[in-house]
Amino acid sequence: MAYIDLKNEEPGIRGPMAYSPETAKPLNELAEILLHSENNTLSRGDRELIGSYVSYLNDCYFCQHVHGAMAGHYLGCSMEAIENMKQHFMESELPIKMKALLSIAGAVQKGGRHVQASQIEVARAAGATDKEIHDTVLIAAAFCMFNRYVDGLGTWAPQDLQVYTDRAPMRAEAGYIGSVKPVGE
Amino acid sequence: MAYIDLKNEEPGIRGPMAYSPETAKPLNELAEILLHSENNTLSRGDRELIGSYVSYLNDCYFCQHVHGAMAGHYLGCSMEAIENMKQHFMESELPIKMKALLSIAGAVQKGGRHVQASQIEVARAAGATDKEIHDTVLIAAAFCMFNRYVDGLGTWAPQDLQVYTDRAPMRAEAGYIGSVKPVGE
Repeated sequence: MAYIDLKNEEPGIRGPMAYSPETAKPLNELAEILLHSENNTLSRGDRELIGSYVSYLNDCYFCQHVHGAMAGHYLGCSMEAIENMKQHFMESELPIKMKALLSIAGAVQKGGRHVQASQIEVARAAGATDKEIHDTVLIAAAFCMFNRYVDGLGTWAPQDLQVYTDRAPMRAEAGYIGSVKPVGE
Repeated sequence: MAYIDLKNEEPGIRGPMAYSPETAKPLNELAEILLHSENNTLSRGDRELIGSYVSYLNDCYFCQHVHGAMAGHYLGCSMEAIENMKQHFMESELPIKMKALLSIAGAVQKGGRHVQASQIEVARAAGATDKEIHDTVLIAAAFCMFNRYVDGLGTWAPQDLQVYTDRAPMRAEAGYIGSVKPVGE
């Protein structure tokens, strides 16, 4: 039960987005560009993994599993494998560039000033471009917003992980623009 | 000197926004609705104060002074008075509704799960509407993104506070949409 009357029963960020379509529009446009746009040298799976990892660090149940399921869908692996990557990405079989970018995302989650020049150097040495570093920082920062919007209003989240896995192919197909109908429509 | 080559010399968030106009568009649309739209029962000054307060908690020099100067402009008080409000808002002469909303914003800055039902009750008892509570949570969450974008990329910020005060009336007049020209334009 959310802290305010959202006038709808949608879970997670979908609740406040349906309540406030005016702000949902730029929020979904941002998600679309950062996570779903094809004009990016980071794969959709890599970008969703960064979002899920930051949501895991922020302890946001809804976002970490929505975007964990999306990452699993694109990367062709199970929710369990994604969970394991989030918890132990340095020991995973991810490419070193992704490990370096996840390390930057983890610093951004703590706060912008936690990012160290040495982390940027490691990412660059692993082949990350300026654009990829920019996008990693902005994805991590955006999830620090999405996660706080979801939990700061006390929204509910399905506890059955299968729900998240089942929805991922539809969301991958449709993208984020217009993904939430305003209350009353 | 930012961590990546932003291809422009603009300070703070203006640097990465000019570098990445595609993402700057929804970011500025969000700022416009949350901070500058007239369709809100919270005044522009109150909303800018919430943004400046969260930026102060996140230790983001650029954002806390840009939006502190905006708050001062709208509320008709000095940068020094705004600084004092941010540091001691509970002892300030702000109305109790704003104190309750700033308290919620401070919890959101720590993390969405830090917001307590009792803080919402206090805000409601002080006259805050559901929409005002929603907007406070989203403004605080959005600044947790803006602040991380600014500092996670290591952007520079003018150190002279007069620079921020001098620019505030122009920004208040023009709003946030289209406030940053893409590199090369």
